[in-house]
This record gives sequence, structure tokens and C-alpha cells, in this order.
Amino acid sequence: MDLKDKIRVIEGFPKEGISFKDVTTILEDKRVFKYTVDKMAEYLKNKDIDVVVGPEARGFLFGAPVAYAIGAGFVPVRKPGKLPCETVKITYDLEYGNDALEIHKDAIKQGQRVALIDDLLATGGTMSSVAKLVEKLGGKVVTVDFVIELTDLKGREKLEDYDVISLVKYNV
Amino acid sequence: MDLKDKIRVIEGFPKEGISFKDVTTILEDKRVFKYTVDKMAEYLKNKDIDVVVGPEARGFLFGAPVAYAIGAGFVPVRKPGKLPCETVKITYDLEYGNDALEIHKDAIKQGQRVALIDDLLATGGTMSSVAKLVEKLGGKVVTVDFVIELTDLKGREKLEDYDVISLVKYNV
Repeated sequence: MDLKDKIRVIEGFPKEGISFKDVTTILEDKRVFKYTVDKMAEYLKNKDIDVVVGPEARGFLFGAPVAYAIGAGFVPVRKPGKLPCETVKITYDLEYGNDALEIHKDAIKQGQRVALIDDLLATGGTMSSVAKLVEKLGGKVVTVDFVIELTDLKGREKLEDYDVISLVKYNV
Repeated sequence: MDLKDKIRVIEGFPKEGISFKDVTTILEDKRVFKYTVDKMAEYLKNKDIDVVVGPEARGFLFGAPVAYAIGAGFVPVRKPGKLPCETVKITYDLEYGNDALEIHKDAIKQGQRVALIDDLLATGGTMSSVAKLVEKLGGKVVTVDFVIELTDLKGREKLEDYDVISLVKYNV
């Protein structure tokens, strides 16, 4: 299956000049959804993953089913104020301003083997922050996996310490 | 497995007087996560579900893996402005003010059999809105499934037209 054919591209969303990759067309088609989750799960087999970690909200859409498929747990990383227990927080720079993410302090146990999953790798800012959160809790980031990679944005460079996998590549 | 033992209850989150049911303790434990998804999937077997629909963001955490487990597609319902294509929108009342949800207009095909999934049934306001969106697109809501139900809030009454299932019940 050529997954690229199944991704809808929308020009000018959320703002002019952006060519948005819409993964809802993957999710809503049962065959394409199963293919995508199975493909991501395949890369994680034999890697002894204890926990999949995914950032809110599109990271949940792929991270949770992949965790289920490989028999791992799932830990959500969320925007500030959403997680009810004690959290660790990281603030990171955006093009304009900054953003922050939180993880439950007790969500990862010392030495657990972790796969990070999100729908799309752009500049890598979100996922390198997620990796730092996991490492702060003592987890080992074994692999970082995306459905889509926008190669021109060089997010891989920000994640050079990790094994990065993506199923579909676009220039931008 | 007694799932209730695995749910963390936090008093006073997000505000005083609320006894918050934290499902992250279900998700992060691989055995409990698998048990929960399998249990929800079991109820959906033989119901010929084409698509699971879940609201942002906790609905994604259970809806997407259950969809995968039963071989269905998944359609996200999101806060306004998050979905990139043409949407149908519904506004509904909250205790103070109101909220709105959107679904992609082409996400459900006429006559498709749909299961709605979310983590928690409280007053039922969110899920009855999700059901209306699905029906507006021509989908048939076959069942509405939750991990947790807060029975005293009588959300079931708002969903009385549907087959409602929950795995764990609390009074409040």
C-alpha cells in the first residue's frame, strides 16, 4: 500500500504557506489504519518496549493503538494543567513565543524502555522535548517514530541521538 | 481484574469538590491497558462496526486502540479550528457558558455503523453532541461505550436512545 496516496494534503491550513498533511484520511479507512498501526508496530517488535509515549492530541491517535498492538503501556504527554497528578514540565521555543508540555512524574519507571510516537515530524521541537521529559524520569528512549516526516525542516537533526523512523516522507 | 482498583482518584481536580477519575493509571500499565481495550472490543464484536468515533482528547486514547482491535476505522471529533477540511459543528451548553465540537463532513458515509467511545460518562453532554454530529452525516450510532460512568450525574438519560455500556461505575 502506498500510504502517501491515503494522506490528504490541504494547502493554507492552519495558515497561508503551509501544506498541511491530514492524517484523518488514514484513520477513517479501516484497512489503511490497520496497515499504518501494524507497520509502526513491526518496527518496534523485538525492541522490548515497555511503554509508548505520545504527545497530545494527534500522538494519541497512533501511539495508543501501537502500544496496544505491541502489548505495551501508553503514557500521554499533555499541555499544562491537563494531567491531574504531580507532573514534570518542559518549556520549549516556537517560531514565535513558546509552548510547554507535561508528563506525570510517576508515569515512567527507572530503566523502562520507551518508544515515542507522533503523527508528524516537522522541526522536531515537540519530540525532543518529549524525549527530555522521558529521560528526566529515568526512561530510555529506544526509538522515535512518526507516520510522516517533512524532511526539509530537518527535525531529524534535533533528534540525532535517537533511532528515528518515519513511514512517509515529504520535502515540506 | 477489578478495573476500579487500577483507576486513580484525585480529589479537588480540576476544581474543588470534584473527585477526578484518572485513567492514565490504566493506560500506563500494559496488562491493564490491554484488558480494558479487549473488554471494550468484546462488546463491539458481532455488531458490524465500520467506524469508531471519539472526542478529543481522552476519547482518542481508548477509541483509537479499540477501533484497531475490532478492525474498524477511527474518526476524531475535535474542538473548533483543529480539523483542516470542511466540518460540521455543534454547540452545546455547559454548566457555565458553552462548548463546541466539529467533525469532518466527509468522515462518515451514509449508513455506516458507528460506535462512540470516550473515557468517562458524566452528564452526557459531550457524547449526545457527538451522536448528533454522526447522525447529521448519515451514520447510525449502534452503541456508546465508556470506561467509566458517574451514575449520579445521569448521563444515561441524555443518551437514552442508544445502547450505553460502561466498564466501571462510580456514584460521583
